[in-house]
Amino acid sequence: MGSTPKRSPLAPASFPDLPPVAGVTFATVEAGVRYSGRTDVMLAKMVAGTTIAGVFTKSTTRAAPVLDCQAKLGGDPSEPAAILVNSGNANAFTGRSGHASVDAITLAVSSICDVPQDRVFTSSTGVIGEPLPHDRVTAQLETLNTTQSPDNVAKAASAIMTTDTYAKGAHQRIVIDGRAVNIVGIAKGSGMIAPDMATMLVYIFTDAVVDQDALQTLVSDLSDKTFNCITVDSDTSTSDTLLMAATGASGVNAAGDAGFANGLHSVMLNLAHQVVRDGEGATKFVEISVTGAVDNATAHTHALAIANSPLVKTAIAGEDPNWGRIVMAIGKSGAPADRDLISIRFGDVVVAENGWVSPNYVEASAAALMKHDEIEIGIDLGMGTGSATVWTCDLTHGYIEINADYRS
Amino acid sequence: MGSTPKRSPLAPASFPDLPPVAGVTFATVEAGVRYSGRTDVMLAKMVAGTTIAGVFTKSTTRAAPVLDCQAKLGGDPSEPAAILVNSGNANAFTGRSGHASVDAITLAVSSICDVPQDRVFTSSTGVIGEPLPHDRVTAQLETLNTTQSPDNVAKAASAIMTTDTYAKGAHQRIVIDGRAVNIVGIAKGSGMIAPDMATMLVYIFTDAVVDQDALQTLVSDLSDKTFNCITVDSDTSTSDTLLMAATGASGVNAAGDAGFANGLHSVMLNLAHQVVRDGEGATKFVEISVTGAVDNATAHTHALAIANSPLVKTAIAGEDPNWGRIVMAIGKSGAPADRDLISIRFGDVVVAENGWVSPNYVEASAAALMKHDEIEIGIDLGMGTGSATVWTCDLTHGYIEINADYRS
Repeated sequence: MGSTPKRSPLAPASFPDLPPVAGVTFATVEAGVRYSGRTDVMLAKMVAGTTIAGVFTKSTTRAAPVLDCQAKLGGDPSEPAAILVNSGNANAFTGRSGHASVDAITLAVSSICDVPQDRVFTSSTGVIGEPLPHDRVTAQLETLNTTQSPDNVAKAASAIMTTDTYAKGAHQRIVIDGRAVNIVGIAKGSGMIAPDMATMLVYIFTDAVVDQDALQTLVSDLSDKTFNCITVDSDTSTSDTLLMAATGASGVNAAGDAGFANGLHSVMLNLAHQVVRDGEGATKFVEISVTGAVDNATAHTHALAIANSPLVKTAIAGEDPNWGRIVMAIGKSGAPADRDLISIRFGDVVVAENGWVSPNYVEASAAALMKHDEIEIGIDLGMGTGSATVWTCDLTHGYIEINADYRS
Repeated sequence: MGSTPKRSPLAPASFPDLPPVAGVTFATVEAGVRYSGRTDVMLAKMVAGTTIAGVFTKSTTRAAPVLDCQAKLGGDPSEPAAILVNSGNANAFTGRSGHASVDAITLAVSSICDVPQDRVFTSSTGVIGEPLPHDRVTAQLETLNTTQSPDNVAKAASAIMTTDTYAKGAHQRIVIDGRAVNIVGIAKGSGMIAPDMATMLVYIFTDAVVDQDALQTLVSDLSDKTFNCITVDSDTSTSDTLLMAATGASGVNAAGDAGFANGLHSVMLNLAHQVVRDGEGATKFVEISVTGAVDNATAHTHALAIANSPLVKTAIAGEDPNWGRIVMAIGKSGAPADRDLISIRFGDVVVAENGWVSPNYVEASAAALMKHDEIEIGIDLGMGTGSATVWTCDLTHGYIEINADYRS
């Protein structure tokens, strides 16, 4: 992983101009965990009073840092907190040494940064199955502690990248009772992306006041509508982590505020879409909306079966409005469907109705739509009121190139 | 689909020399359903007294011919029977016209070949969602009826191909109480292959006597150990069909005979492996064996999660012994696993033990194994006695090339 991969054609024009969030500072460093010539560790420090919520991979082979974070969610919010992330090595499937590395890093952060060890959260992303050379991380902690700045969030977004072709950030400014709060998020991820969080690391910060329970409920609910609705390759990482920290430094209480929830949803959806747009080898951003299912869960099952089908994804790569493969994917999903009630559209072009090709369908219309970078596919099952939307990308030679060579 | 694709590097050296099966004759023809310059319809006729068993796709969007076959399994075995298969068009997701096409073909076969309509089984494979031009099939029935020969089974295997790069056949000769019977099978399939039968058509013939119920039980059981243990791309077809006909013309009763069951298992496993070996773009044939699971079903779930993982399949394509991705796939399968009990081997090279890299592991040994055409991966979960084996292939540029262009 020497050279920087080419920026995804679906990437945003530029990294957003993220404002500082009161109560949070960041620093990054080149620790040489695996990569050289780039930053690979970031440390975020949060003031006392910060509440922290998290959502994690459901993999049964979760990495040591994930297990450690999960155990620490109940820590005392009156204490300061820290998040340390390294890229290059996932510290996953590393047996007892994995836990020892987490302990070594969190203990060192605790002592150097004056944060209780049970308030130090870590994530690791990169190669699986190789011991994390944690000495290279701890050797940089003094530097990371003394170079903290509220303005370093963009640098943090870069330091956590692995196969990402661009750094990912998003923010919203929310006004509550006339007073503004900020929500700022960063993320990494481009492969091994599937619901249950995938190889995705997401860190969101706000200066709003949100108590621990309210923050956890909000983050869990919104994850189900955002990060758990994206898939690149159906593969789920052992390291997926979303942490959200509410420093409270603005003094503005946002718990229960609908505008705040909407703003957070927007930040999370934006970051989730950016992860799909950086899907390994992706050339198309695809939204798949299923309606008319017997319930929402069924709709979600169908939408994911379509989004994860290699035959659907290669057809999209080939700009082929191959609705037959969508029918196939619906059929294999295992969820209820009636072949003769299904309608399918590409954008606003109705391709199939009542189980057969639409009498008004002109393939050239759908074929023209398929040439766009962004494709919307709508499926109505005609059975009920359940609905779901997921986002994915196409499956191209680029995916094969990246994954037949890169040891992740 | 003009030019013949290059023969898979994993193909057998040649098509086997299949013996005739007493009581069955075959004919093939160029009907021009979609392809030109090749045969695309085969008709097999079986004598009165033939019992027929079937296993079909579990897709909820099953094609009309599949639904028709399923309805006819209970037909009267004292009557003759026929199987007609066309390639080029799957007659799937074709609404009411799909059923009309099946009716037109089976009625014409019935009247021209003097077989009751409820003993005429059809399959169609190829493009989904376009009406089947069944007139092109029925126009050839006189020819198909008058050119029947017991020696045409190899021609039948060729006529049913779609994206297959080679015709697939297998046979076994079984001696029961000193008297021989033959089992001869043909198959097609190379993509959209996943358990629940995938885009796979399989026809097996024997001259043994096996009553209808015994034949169905045997075929269903053996399918679970063969065709339902292979996967190319996790996509399940709407048309998968396995039909087995026992003509009884040898007069040798094989119901309950262990040698016959073993012989049939061998034919089915051979054909299933040939389908994987013709997996679209495949360059490696991969056997994945899971042991130590809490039960067999759990072992099967883990084995399929590994076999269907794009990251595992691309690593194999890249000849990378990337056991971390296997751990990932186990973790995402949803079935019980304990990270710290997992052992993984490539062939006889133990890579990981007790949740971590084996102390004796030398990557060069595993890397050398990965260069072979045939790769065996063993996973022991260390939890119980459940086991399962599945077969798959790697995911390569060839898969993308075939599926980003071919309208199936």
